[in-house]
Order: sequence, then structure tokens, then C-alpha cells
Amino acid sequence: MSDTHSLDTLVQALRRLPGVGVRSAQRMAFHLLQHDREGAQLLARSLQDAVSQVRHCALCHTFTEGEVCATCQDPRRDASKLAVVETPADQAALERTGAFKGRYFVLMGKLSPLDGVGPRDIGMHKLIERASDGTVQEVILATNFTAEGETTAHVIAQALKNRGLTVTRLARGVPAGSELEYVDLGTIAHALVDRR
Amino acid sequence: MSDTHSLDTLVQALRRLPGVGVRSAQRMAFHLLQHDREGAQLLARSLQDAVSQVRHCALCHTFTEGEVCATCQDPRRDASKLAVVETPADQAALERTGAFKGRYFVLMGKLSPLDGVGPRDIGMHKLIERASDGTVQEVILATNFTAEGETTAHVIAQALKNRGLTVTRLARGVPAGSELEYVDLGTIAHALVDRR
Repeated sequence: MSDTHSLDTLVQALRRLPGVGVRSAQRMAFHLLQHDREGAQLLARSLQDAVSQVRHCALCHTFTEGEVCATCQDPRRDASKLAVVETPADQAALERTGAFKGRYFVLMGKLSPLDGVGPRDIGMHKLIERASDGTVQEVILATNFTAEGETTAHVIAQALKNRGLTVTRLARGVPAGSELEYVDLGTIAHALVDRR
Repeated sequence: MSDTHSLDTLVQALRRLPGVGVRSAQRMAFHLLQHDREGAQLLARSLQDAVSQVRHCALCHTFTEGEVCATCQDPRRDASKLAVVETPADQAALERTGAFKGRYFVLMGKLSPLDGVGPRDIGMHKLIERASDGTVQEVILATNFTAEGETTAHVIAQALKNRGLTVTRLARGVPAGSELEYVDLGTIAHALVDRR
């Protein structure tokens, strides 16, 4: 209907969010317009601010508002260790463990030839440059343990090993707190092979 | 981190969307900033346009950009029949059937005392005014068949019947195309009672 043009446009725009279909988009638009117009305006401003201010760290590729992100600038971090992760969320998960004090390189994606995502898209040349700076002693591959994450780790490992760098991968094994009876066979098999 | 302030603000703003938790909000923010900045700007503009232009139809309460919505203005619609629905989405569902040519009153919600939603919030006085205009011959209650929808229908029916208006309710029964074996007992019981 022509008298709800801006509403229809809003529903279409909401559908560009990942995981949002036409019904969710309608529900979101209805909620914002009926119950939370203040939230709608806040969201509009936040989107504009983020688009204009967020860019990629010149060193590690993660989101930042400066030239270089806070983690890369922090002098207390161990520059000899570089963890390679897929996304800022993965980086945050590693940070929450408190077990890693090195630096990061964030791929902002993963290799996925079927979706047209190649080495250039995950900043492979930048990663190689960063890893070969003479300070980095060990590159820890912390991509996800999915098919695409494993492929990405494999390709990066090959490229870095060819340049004589030490490359490690997060250990595969039985998750903390789990009972063997309920752990999938692939995980137990890996834990057996990688036993120590 | 202070260097991702606008990103954090965006994640918080996205969480105000219904059904979006912190993980979904992070995924959405990541997607927009990494893969679809154009979509983010489009969404920001759409939100602002919708908030500034969408208001409620003076007659039926649905969303419209004019004073009165297109359905209420349409002279081909039968003004003697008034369907009461909860949301514009429910109205759209009725419209898609092509089986109703009357007019609508959209409650933009449902009675829900626990959430503090009373008769005033669903425009009860406006509905009574509209239904008592002398033109409306029949009010068809098409609220949802949920506990809250049924309560809403009951309260509206009482208020309108007290004013001598004809009030009907959508029929309850076995959905088209279904096999009795797989229909829930409450539905079959209703279909038995309402047999014709």
C-alpha cells in the first residue's frame, strides 16, 4: 500500500540483517513503531555513528575507531605470540579465558571458495607481513574447528611454515567438564591421537 | 574497550529489537560493518523516515502515513462490517484470503493486564465510538485464538453487546487440509460443539 511506503522500506531494510526473514522484520518494525520509537532513533544514530567511525586496525584488522586498536597498542602484551582468529567475537572469547597475553590477527572471515572468499579477503598478505616482522616467534592458529575454519588454518599454516615460522594450532580434545559417554566419537578419536 | 565505543553502542541498540540477544546483536553489527555498510546506512535512513512519517489511522488505528489509511478511505469496502484484529500483520492475513471486504479496527496490541496493557491501550473507546457510528451492522472479532486474544475478544464482545451491537467471532474448528488423527483434542472438541 502506498500509504505505508516508509514502513515497507523499513521492513526491507531490516531484512538485510543476518537471520532476519520477512516475519521477523515485520515484527521488529511493528515493535519499534508501536512501542519503542526512541529505540528506533537510537538505533538509527548508532548505525550512522558506527559506519562513520569504525574502521579496521592497521596492524590486526579488527574493528577500531583509531588507526591501531587498543590491543595492538598495549605495551604489556607479548608481541612474540600472535593468535590468528576469525572474528572479533572469537578474539573476545580468547580474551575472556585470561590465558593468552599475546597479540592478535583477526581475519574478519574465513576462507570459503564456494562463497568467493579467497586469501586476499582474509588479509593473508597482511598476516604474512605481520608474522614475518622479526618480533613474532609463534603464530597460534585459533580459527574455528569447523570445515572452513580448519581449511583456513591449514592454508595459513602452509604459507607461514614455508617462510620458516613456528605455527601451532589450538589443541583438539575433550571439553572441560564433559563425560566421555556423551562426547562425539570424532572428538574422542582426536583426543586419543593428541594424548600427552 | 574505549576504541570501539560506537560499535558497543550499536550492539546495545540492536538488542532493543525483539528477539535479539547479545550474540545476535554482535553478529548483526559484525555483518553490517564488515559486509554491508550500505545496508547499515539504508537501515538508519529507513528507521528515521518511518519514525517521522508513520502514524496511526484516525479511524482504524493501523499504521499509515496519511490522516486516514487507504483501507478506511476505499469507498468499495463494505462499511457495515468491521473486523477487529490485533496487528497490521493479522489484518494483512485476512486481506490475503480475499474473503473479507469490510473495514477494520486494529487494536495494535491485545489486553494483557500482567504487562499493564488495559482497554485504553488498545483504543477500546475509539473502537466503541467507531462501532456505534450507525453504519456498522456487525463487528467481527478476529483477534488471535490465544489466551490473551480470547480474553480481548471476550471483553470487547461484552462492551459492544451492552450497546446492542451484533458481535461475531471467527469460527473455531479443524484447519483446512488436516487429518483428524493429528489435530489437537481442544480443536476437535470446539469443532464438535460448533458443528453446522
